[in-house]
Amino acid sequence: MELSQMNKEQLLCFKGENEADYSKFKAQGLSLDMSRGKPSSDQLDLSMDMLKVFDDGNCTSETGFDCRNYGLLDGIPEAKKLFAPMIGVNTDEIIIFGNSSLSAMYWSVQTAYTHGVLGSKPWCKYDKVKFLCPVPGYDRHFKVTEFFGIEMINVPMTPTGPDMDMVERLVAEDETVKGIWCVPQYSNPDGISYSDETVKRFAALKPKAKDFRIFWDNAYCVHHLTDNPKYILNILDEAKKVGNENIVYMFGSTSKITFPGAGVAFMGGSKENMDALKKFLGTSIISYDKMNQLRHVKYFGTYENILEHMKKHTALLVPKFNAVTDMLEAEIAPLGIGSWIKPEGGYFVSFNSLPGCAKRIVQLCKEAGVVLTGAGATFPYGKDPEDKNIRISPSYPTVEELKKAMELFVICVKLASAEKLLAEA
Amino acid sequence: MELSQMNKEQLLCFKGENEADYSKFKAQGLSLDMSRGKPSSDQLDLSMDMLKVFDDGNCTSETGFDCRNYGLLDGIPEAKKLFAPMIGVNTDEIIIFGNSSLSAMYWSVQTAYTHGVLGSKPWCKYDKVKFLCPVPGYDRHFKVTEFFGIEMINVPMTPTGPDMDMVERLVAEDETVKGIWCVPQYSNPDGISYSDETVKRFAALKPKAKDFRIFWDNAYCVHHLTDNPKYILNILDEAKKVGNENIVYMFGSTSKITFPGAGVAFMGGSKENMDALKKFLGTSIISYDKMNQLRHVKYFGTYENILEHMKKHTALLVPKFNAVTDMLEAEIAPLGIGSWIKPEGGYFVSFNSLPGCAKRIVQLCKEAGVVLTGAGATFPYGKDPEDKNIRISPSYPTVEELKKAMELFVICVKLASAEKLLAEA
Repeated sequence: MELSQMNKEQLLCFKGENEADYSKFKAQGLSLDMSRGKPSSDQLDLSMDMLKVFDDGNCTSETGFDCRNYGLLDGIPEAKKLFAPMIGVNTDEIIIFGNSSLSAMYWSVQTAYTHGVLGSKPWCKYDKVKFLCPVPGYDRHFKVTEFFGIEMINVPMTPTGPDMDMVERLVAEDETVKGIWCVPQYSNPDGISYSDETVKRFAALKPKAKDFRIFWDNAYCVHHLTDNPKYILNILDEAKKVGNENIVYMFGSTSKITFPGAGVAFMGGSKENMDALKKFLGTSIISYDKMNQLRHVKYFGTYENILEHMKKHTALLVPKFNAVTDMLEAEIAPLGIGSWIKPEGGYFVSFNSLPGCAKRIVQLCKEAGVVLTGAGATFPYGKDPEDKNIRISPSYPTVEELKKAMELFVICVKLASAEKLLAEA
Repeated sequence: MELSQMNKEQLLCFKGENEADYSKFKAQGLSLDMSRGKPSSDQLDLSMDMLKVFDDGNCTSETGFDCRNYGLLDGIPEAKKLFAPMIGVNTDEIIIFGNSSLSAMYWSVQTAYTHGVLGSKPWCKYDKVKFLCPVPGYDRHFKVTEFFGIEMINVPMTPTGPDMDMVERLVAEDETVKGIWCVPQYSNPDGISYSDETVKRFAALKPKAKDFRIFWDNAYCVHHLTDNPKYILNILDEAKKVGNENIVYMFGSTSKITFPGAGVAFMGGSKENMDALKKFLGTSIISYDKMNQLRHVKYFGTYENILEHMKKHTALLVPKFNAVTDMLEAEIAPLGIGSWIKPEGGYFVSFNSLPGCAKRIVQLCKEAGVVLTGAGATFPYGKDPEDKNIRISPSYPTVEELKKAMELFVICVKLASAEKLLAEA
């Protein structure tokens, strides 16, 4: 029976049962952190042999360059070759950064803010600059734009990607709309992959602002949870077809391939965009850690080997994602008090409760020892207008811990939903 | 006989002899790059065992944190302990960055530019912001301030550090003077170490601008060329004594201790300064490469071991610096056509030719196959008002190559000097 169809007595009874279950959980003294999309130790162990690649004492790039020393601002050639196919660019369309794609995104927003884009007026010289933010989305994206005082406009996600009618309208009519944050494959947190039509419409955008850029964070481009993954269209290829190749900045990293603390990040885009950014880059650094670039190259060799490596991650992650969605399917679906998409990749399950319940659910979980990403975090300024989205990160705990945490989670969802319906009754 | 005392005929004869020597050199087809302060392969080989420290499979910080994963924004505790004594701060007064102290400097200028310092008005909101630049100095410092449109004011170096009368006067009278670039120990390029009085006067500065900061780049703090090195005073300690501890940002790195491409950089200062900067930092990165931090910690263990390690660098570098200064002493000193300081540490010999000769000398060297740092590079905007300073970087070539290069260099100095004196005669 769906919860919304219960009368007050039934709801009170339902609430009482769940309060009892909740008290039992509280007594167990759980302590679990599910707040961030961190790989588990098992996943990190997959790449331990990468730490041995310099046993041969050879630190030389294929061009004879000593990777221990200064130089090669935009990365070693073989790292460009290895990572270019991951984000779908040519080797002259990629810059290899340090260990953080977030840093590369921050830096590309920062340089646009202080110095403009391809010679345009710096964004800081405008009274107001705006970014479009598909919601729910990634909190750290929103923090970057908030940091630079950029006004964020929510754009709803649909099963095929952001609402493109709204995106096209807003970029066409407002010159102060300078960018949009996108996680096109296995979006954070929904796990939605943009449809071919969505990618084509992005590639063909005709913004009023010539310095508008799509910040295409392809963080999960090879992070599948199925055996037959679907890849999104290559936006740069599509943009080239319509003479619009400067529209997009693309980002990727090995953070969730090798080590989040010690991976390699990269940025791609048209040669004109990358050449202009390289000129800025030389002001802030002499070169990134080429030894770590070479470490990845020596370990993987080819892009195909990266894909093989990712299958091991998939094998470790699938049971965890199943633990989450199975529990939701069994306990929440029949009650009609929540919705979610079973993701085919990425790092999250995005749960939508009844409106007005997310904060309460997160609070209840926390008081019983399970820390979730803060409710609201998936929206700009931390404000979920309907207070219903919760990002579940299944990767870090063990399957057993996760099952325990999900038992608690569904109790909290039931409790919060009953409270809400009773308050409205 | 000094060149200035020669008559025209003597000068013409002297010039002719050197032209002949120069032609012989040109015919040799040399190809040597002495443009940057890069360590040699021998120096890099000293740290190769650092690449083996994870053979034990242990990637865990002393607090039990897995360094392969996300987290610990400001660095692992043991890296703070290892590097804090190098720049002279406590462990709660240091942030561990990535592989580049230049990046940390860029970022600290950038955040001041876009967000101010400890809540002050952002520098970008001023019509004009100025930095003091002791000259000659480090070109990459000047590039950072130039990038943000900051006006640079030359301050002459003296044998005890920058002209402190001028520094004190300028910071006291002008609120738009927001910073000064300093390399206090073995300055780049002069190799001058600031005297105790200079450090004390810096520590006690009373700038009109409350958001004025000293950018104290202690790049060569353990990079001695003598057995009994003199250390400069600790500016933060001195500043604390006079209640002025927020005046300074300190920087250091292992770029010239382990690997320039894969070292660890850090920044220190008052707890108030560092706490404020950490809040900014979380916007741009989740964490730096903690595996590389741990790699350095496992390899060195203690600060004392770093000092021992540096003695091996000293042993490799001293013959190279001697090759430079011996040649200058033998060939240039008697002619009175140049001056320099024999450095006790650091990476450079700063050569001052007769006024108006530096560009010509660099050009002559280049045409004969030896690339030096561009003349003017040691001054803001690349403009040496007297066109006399040339930065010589002895570290990268072998002693034999260096001797050859210096043979050419002194011929070029002689030739350019003779040309100049003849033109004036």
